Amino acid sequence: MSDYTDLNGTPRSFGDAEAQREVRENDRGYVFHSWSAQGKIDPLPVARGEGAKFWDYDGTEYLDFSSQLVNLNLGHQHPGLVKAIQDQAGRLTTIQPALANDARGELAKRIVEHSFEGARSVFFTNGGAEAIEYAVRLARQSSGKRKILSRYRSYHGSTGTAITMTGEPRRWANDVIDGEVVHFFGPYAYRSAFWAETPEQETERALAHLEQQIQLEGPGTIAAVVLETVTGTNGVLVPPPGYLPGVREITERHGILLILDEVMVGFGRTGEWFAYQGFDVRPDLVTFAKGVNSGYVPLGGVVISEAVHEAFVERPFPGGLTYSGHPLACAAGVATFDIFEREGILERVRDLGSRVIEPRLREIFEKHPSVGEYRGTGLFWALELVRDRATREPLVPFNASGDAAAPFNAVVAACKEAGLWPFAAGNRLQIAPPLVISEEDLVRGLDIIDEALKVADSYVVGA
Amino acid sequence: MSDYTDLNGTPRSFGDAEAQREVRENDRGYVFHSWSAQGKIDPLPVARGEGAKFWDYDGTEYLDFSSQLVNLNLGHQHPGLVKAIQDQAGRLTTIQPALANDARGELAKRIVEHSFEGARSVFFTNGGAEAIEYAVRLARQSSGKRKILSRYRSYHGSTGTAITMTGEPRRWANDVIDGEVVHFFGPYAYRSAFWAETPEQETERALAHLEQQIQLEGPGTIAAVVLETVTGTNGVLVPPPGYLPGVREITERHGILLILDEVMVGFGRTGEWFAYQGFDVRPDLVTFAKGVNSGYVPLGGVVISEAVHEAFVERPFPGGLTYSGHPLACAAGVATFDIFEREGILERVRDLGSRVIEPRLREIFEKHPSVGEYRGTGLFWALELVRDRATREPLVPFNASGDAAAPFNAVVAACKEAGLWPFAAGNRLQIAPPLVISEEDLVRGLDIIDEALKVADSYVVGA
Ligand SMILES: Cc1ncc(COP(=O)(O)O)c(C=O)c1O
Ligand SMILES: Cc1ncc(COP(=O)(O)O)c(C=O)c1O
Repeated sequence: MSDYTDLNGTPRSFGDAEAQREVRENDRGYVFHSWSAQGKIDPLPVARGEGAKFWDYDGTEYLDFSSQLVNLNLGHQHPGLVKAIQDQAGRLTTIQPALANDARGELAKRIVEHSFEGARSVFFTNGGAEAIEYAVRLARQSSGKRKILSRYRSYHGSTGTAITMTGEPRRWANDVIDGEVVHFFGPYAYRSAFWAETPEQETERALAHLEQQIQLEGPGTIAAVVLETVTGTNGVLVPPPGYLPGVREITERHGILLILDEVMVGFGRTGEWFAYQGFDVRPDLVTFAKGVNSGYVPLGGVVISEAVHEAFVERPFPGGLTYSGHPLACAAGVATFDIFEREGILERVRDLGSRVIEPRLREIFEKHPSVGEYRGTGLFWALELVRDRATREPLVPFNASGDAAAPFNAVVAACKEAGLWPFAAGNRLQIAPPLVISEEDLVRGLDIIDEALKVADSYVVGA
Repeated sequence: MSDYTDLNGTPRSFGDAEAQREVRENDRGYVFHSWSAQGKIDPLPVARGEGAKFWDYDGTEYLDFSSQLVNLNLGHQHPGLVKAIQDQAGRLTTIQPALANDARGELAKRIVEHSFEGARSVFFTNGGAEAIEYAVRLARQSSGKRKILSRYRSYHGSTGTAITMTGEPRRWANDVIDGEVVHFFGPYAYRSAFWAETPEQETERALAHLEQQIQLEGPGTIAAVVLETVTGTNGVLVPPPGYLPGVREITERHGILLILDEVMVGFGRTGEWFAYQGFDVRPDLVTFAKGVNSGYVPLGGVVISEAVHEAFVERPFPGGLTYSGHPLACAAGVATFDIFEREGILERVRDLGSRVIEPRLREIFEKHPSVGEYRGTGLFWALELVRDRATREPLVPFNASGDAAAPFNAVVAACKEAGLWPFAAGNRLQIAPPLVISEEDLVRGLDIIDEALKVADSYVVGA
């Protein structure tokens, strides 16, 4: 058995310094990286992946607690997905959007059937940002209104409108492309923007805040309110009871569409097909990507309600893209549904979340003074790290970098040294392993985090 | 031998009405289509593709003169591309952009090495529109300026900034998302915007027009000028001698970046790796997609000059996407370079273009009064259809639809009935077959067009 196969198909063993050097050289020599100062990065060359693990060229093994960018829901190299791609590549790799294709139609059907009541069709894109761009276009063009309300502490992607809608620091350096986007505050009980003291109060005040802001922006000018159903990169913020139904009630009353961004949490992350299915809310438009086929082939899209679809039955929808409904990507999506069902993925996510993760994180919380709060659902959790539990001062300042971020970076480094690749964001260790992770690996990963948190504890005030 | 394989892997024969019905039903039932009134379309279900041909479920064969959406440069189911995808799927289907990957680095290297002098790196996206969005961001963020000048009669994609930059009717129905885009006129000798009478005059005046517009918009406010090197969907407009070097001289003199959009014409369409290599011009940023891997896996990107790259060595580039540099897509890109070299694709494009197409189109032009002009290069040509050669009145009005478009639609229908799938745009039959098309098929396709043009002739004034 070889350890991995190189680009020429040659079997190779770990520890080949020359192979590693070449990958690194080509990367630093020619690849321009997202979100980075190109002179300050040294991306790790990865030789192999399998399930919840991946390996560098030295054979160092990493347990993937981030599912890459929270897309690899079925893990690395799932045989069912690999086969679906290989088969479709052998059948009909691609065909233009204006023709009809079996894989595309079948995936659209499965998505609609697993989606909300009144869902009518799917518009396919290549990824999450594009899904958001087209959801906004569908909302604006069907309503005849232009303003979009999105939340602070959100990420919706990095193309023009999507980055403007984003409510976190990645927006800051960008030009305002889309002047018709307005931000509001959502519920976040641990750091309430509403001086709330209970989750009930947080819900009530967050809704009152949204109602006021809609009133003052003018309901007649607002096309849609956009939310991540469960806020992802910005903190695994699970909506408190009543919030999403409340938003639905408000938007419906004002004739405003509700777009739920499920690019990160759709397809099983929370133990549901779509996360909103756990929160008693019926959206008008839902964006998805990532989990739809675990990112094996770029794919995203928008689930469209009957009412929005109706607006474009007689008049053309003004938008499109070359790879809309790409057969190779869609075939991997169809396989995803089959695998989820065959392997009981949703059930295991709920089981592992409530039986393994939640109690273990409670222990970790009780043990480590640096853990201010733990929260989450399914296979999606966050540990919010603080210097001081009483004041809730974060372990590192908001949007820290360089020296200011050192304490948090030390925790992340401790995880990596122990073989865990965490999902690190702000002052949070977030937990988002592939949904196929074994219970044993999950426990082992949580043990590594437990140990690494000693580093964080050492920064706690009075430690 | 079966005719095709269905989604379950079962071999099937053409003529299975049930199979066709299911594909059609799922499509009309669940798929929301680009650029369409959903109630007015009936997309043809396609069962199989091979080389320059594809087949519907009845077994009707179509010769593909549009390469799908001018992306299928290596044709349907090229064995080398299929194998590269199947192999990469078996090795490592995906890995996040922040890690280093062999396929990604190798493709970036090949692209840079086949690109312009001073090219430094590649930022990968999922498709063409995203490539444009990021090229614009790179230009704005590196220059500190915001305005973008793009041309009328252009298509740059359908996301927010890309559709605003687009200079044709698909922009009209869309909201202006990006207020810092300004349109100018480019050369188009057959319908000159500059009252020019010769190609030399067209060049000279087009440059004077651009110079004036830059002066009046304020050179200090303009980040970039964007051009399709050879205008694609809007008419196969090959730049007249001196135009592109002239644009380069003007932009350079004013400290304005030059972005060449090669999403449609890159990777062999004109017989060069990049079309600009035929026009003595050195760009700062080049967008590509489609031909980079024939659209077998969604992929696009931007080739970045040393100077623009330098701006993001110390400070982070504010942008990114989950699937940037997707390994599966990149592996198909690497194979594209191998196949182009092994099969001498560039040489055959030049040969077929000059030896087979050009003379045959001249004949067609001489024979059919409905052909106002023929123009093109490589395997990229257009026949501009008119009602009157003297007045150059187009066969159907600009942006015609419904009854007004009937004469042109009749020509397109005649092509399809004869088994040719044309690239129809406005009042033009455009010719963009896969670059692997056999000479025999190419000749046959041109014969079909020759015949179908009788329909156009019947509308000619005085016919
Ligand atoms: C909630 C959400 N929306 C949109 C996006 C953008 O997706 P993409 O990176 O595929 O453009 C992301 C990516 O992380 C996301 O988490
Ligand atoms: C020149 C040009 N730029 C950009 C695009 C947009 O590419 P995509 O459809 O992949 O978004 C196209 C698509 O046809 C194009 O021809």
